[in-house]
Amino acid sequence: MFPYNPLTDEIIALLQRRLSPGAVVADPAGLKACAVDASTLSHRPELVVRAQTVDDVQTTLKMANQYNFPVTPRGGGSGLAGGCLPHLGGVVLSTRELCAVRAIDAANFTMEVEAGAISSQVREAAAAHNLFYPPDPAGMDLSTIGGNAATDAGGPACVKYGTTRDYILGLEAVLPDGTLINTGVRTRKGVVGYDLTNLLVGCEGTLAVITALTLKLIPRPPATVGALCAFASMGAAMRAVARIMAEGHLPSAIEFLDHRCLALVGELLPFELPTGKPSLLLMELDGPAEQIAPEMETVISLATNEGAIHVLRAPNEQDRQRIWEVRRQVSLRIHDHAVLYIPEDVAVPLSAIARLVDALPDFEARYAIEIFAFGHAGDGNIHLNITTQYLARQPRAEQGVKALLEMVLELGGTISGEHGIGLAKKEFLPLELSPASIRLQQGIKQLFDPNLILNPGKIFP
Amino acid sequence: MFPYNPLTDEIIALLQRRLSPGAVVADPAGLKACAVDASTLSHRPELVVRAQTVDDVQTTLKMANQYNFPVTPRGGGSGLAGGCLPHLGGVVLSTRELCAVRAIDAANFTMEVEAGAISSQVREAAAAHNLFYPPDPAGMDLSTIGGNAATDAGGPACVKYGTTRDYILGLEAVLPDGTLINTGVRTRKGVVGYDLTNLLVGCEGTLAVITALTLKLIPRPPATVGALCAFASMGAAMRAVARIMAEGHLPSAIEFLDHRCLALVGELLPFELPTGKPSLLLMELDGPAEQIAPEMETVISLATNEGAIHVLRAPNEQDRQRIWEVRRQVSLRIHDHAVLYIPEDVAVPLSAIARLVDALPDFEARYAIEIFAFGHAGDGNIHLNITTQYLARQPRAEQGVKALLEMVLELGGTISGEHGIGLAKKEFLPLELSPASIRLQQGIKQLFDPNLILNPGKIFP
Repeated sequence: MFPYNPLTDEIIALLQRRLSPGAVVADPAGLKACAVDASTLSHRPELVVRAQTVDDVQTTLKMANQYNFPVTPRGGGSGLAGGCLPHLGGVVLSTRELCAVRAIDAANFTMEVEAGAISSQVREAAAAHNLFYPPDPAGMDLSTIGGNAATDAGGPACVKYGTTRDYILGLEAVLPDGTLINTGVRTRKGVVGYDLTNLLVGCEGTLAVITALTLKLIPRPPATVGALCAFASMGAAMRAVARIMAEGHLPSAIEFLDHRCLALVGELLPFELPTGKPSLLLMELDGPAEQIAPEMETVISLATNEGAIHVLRAPNEQDRQRIWEVRRQVSLRIHDHAVLYIPEDVAVPLSAIARLVDALPDFEARYAIEIFAFGHAGDGNIHLNITTQYLARQPRAEQGVKALLEMVLELGGTISGEHGIGLAKKEFLPLELSPASIRLQQGIKQLFDPNLILNPGKIFP
Repeated sequence: MFPYNPLTDEIIALLQRRLSPGAVVADPAGLKACAVDASTLSHRPELVVRAQTVDDVQTTLKMANQYNFPVTPRGGGSGLAGGCLPHLGGVVLSTRELCAVRAIDAANFTMEVEAGAISSQVREAAAAHNLFYPPDPAGMDLSTIGGNAATDAGGPACVKYGTTRDYILGLEAVLPDGTLINTGVRTRKGVVGYDLTNLLVGCEGTLAVITALTLKLIPRPPATVGALCAFASMGAAMRAVARIMAEGHLPSAIEFLDHRCLALVGELLPFELPTGKPSLLLMELDGPAEQIAPEMETVISLATNEGAIHVLRAPNEQDRQRIWEVRRQVSLRIHDHAVLYIPEDVAVPLSAIARLVDALPDFEARYAIEIFAFGHAGDGNIHLNITTQYLARQPRAEQGVKALLEMVLELGGTISGEHGIGLAKKEFLPLELSPASIRLQQGIKQLFDPNLILNPGKIFP
């Protein structure tokens, strides 16, 4: 696609000769599998390269500069913003098969792991040494650790533990010109030169292809307890969140569901929901069992003081799975429920969550949409799932999305808390960032990738 | 100084006209005060600008581009690497008087504060709202919060809470061309574009002048308890650290002193130190009083199992001040003790601390130096204070420093854990970073500051 060259048979033959056996995938099923992610977008690549070695990544990028074709890196393909889709054609470069755990240093609390390892497997590898890798993005059984780094993935545990970024000490990455670099440190601290690690984290694969990561691990919390609390209103639930956190409690999850979400999953709950616009909090605490059991009772009594009507305790793993099933079913049922589905992922200051959620009915009426709101109450990260039953209403729904994002920014928020910009949200970037900031970031892109061959046309409008 | 122009009377008069009243300082005492930091270096500026407004910062930088003079930003002047010294002449731009706390949003756990506020005052401002700003660099009564950000300052609490970087949600900063930008978010999460915040944090004032920060605060831990444990050897102390952390305890400080340090302060201790090469751990736990009091007993019994010979408990503020006084006196007495003093600040993987400290006597013998080692055992950050009694031994001592840094890198460490590179360590940068990484970082510098007027000649050799 202009201004790029098509992948001719000659280029494909060269790639086949220079890359590891099995790396080049040109069959229709292989191409189709890399045409989609978890967004609603679809773009078929001309070719897929499944890197078997770091050298395959370097060779592909060198040839892309030489023959002028775009390269779009891909991890697990579970992103929600189209960041791994090749909308300008060219090669999709999968790091999925670079998935070895290279080393775990239990005494130093670090793991060196290749980018293609599945996030939940990284967690399990840490757990086998009684260590903990905290980030828990919803798609962690599908997403790769490299993809998590490229998008700085979040998850429910962020409120206590921070995002992926906070657990990356250093990276091994291939620059767009094919040069392999190492960033960061293997120690807990380091201030030597500019922070290239954090620049690559969250860059959505536009500045380099991450091939391996040095992760910071922590001791594994010995126990976890959970609880569900139902409230008559979102305001009451948010007052409970504010109160719990102001008292110094730091739950390892504090999720909320709004009344529309609850209408989809009410029958999974063992109590009758209040009429009106009820809301639900799902909370967890982790730590030594003898500390968190009494702490959870304190937290529940704070919630009750702020108006919790029903409480369901989940003291063990089996009960906790049951309360998380409520949350999981919400996502699935929103998908099933709607013809058109636009997942937004804003974050607002904690004090503004209730105000935003209370304003949603107005937007629903004005733009003929239904908005299902759930998310991470403890860090203000709200998944606004905008739906309609009629495809013809898409343009109006999109106006509604823009108006919502404008309100989020007025509240001091951000248009993406954890999904990133990718392809799906790049037109909204100027709502949040100043022209000077965008110009500077595009300068960084140009510096790293002067021929614009690595994941071009993403993030920036 | 070539390639810059001298600050002529005409330029100084223009600055005086365009900047706030009182901003331009040209008297000898004012210039001398900005000629030094906490390193042993000294470089006198041609002029000092004490910015009274953000506009003063912008105007100074615009004029620097126009008239080709260097500008070196300065916070509290407590850095140990010469980062704020104007070795190429020109203007020292002090942000010290931009020091207002603009807002504290207790419900959202954030503070917006100007760069010149003193770090300990930031802590106090947070504490007044029952909130906590965790970073605690040694010079926090002198250093500014902007300077802490520019160097990503650490401190004893890092082991539990992380460095300054971990508490910065967003920045207001002036680019070298005078453009004001805002980076980051006011929310707990955000993945919108490249992470300019983390790029400016730790850049030692070479990419932008930070004028204000949005800080993330946390609930204030209600109580803190401390203890000193003496061991017969460094190996035993480090085994205790490893054991304590492996068992899931996360002290809010876990500092060590080696036998040379102890020889300077032995009389401050209420117990007789073992002969040979003893070492000392200073530990703190913070959290709810009813949790940390028994937890400290568990920690002490782990330490005792690993060979702690004497234990001194510090259950209250007054006792804690007394044990920290031991640590503070070490720094002061090393200074007093030596004619030549080179402060290095390495970090190594936790498992390598004892190996490094055990190797120090070899270096002392080979390079005719004395090395006083103390630091943050929980994150492997070791302050190696290299001294001699004879100035004539300086060249040999510097060879020793280089050899030490090479060993640190062999152990998987980094040449600076928290002081930064500045002027003092830039010749050592290529020991740690590859030519490709340095080239890329210099490209970023060139992109931000094409005329190289902002803190030029720092970090890169």
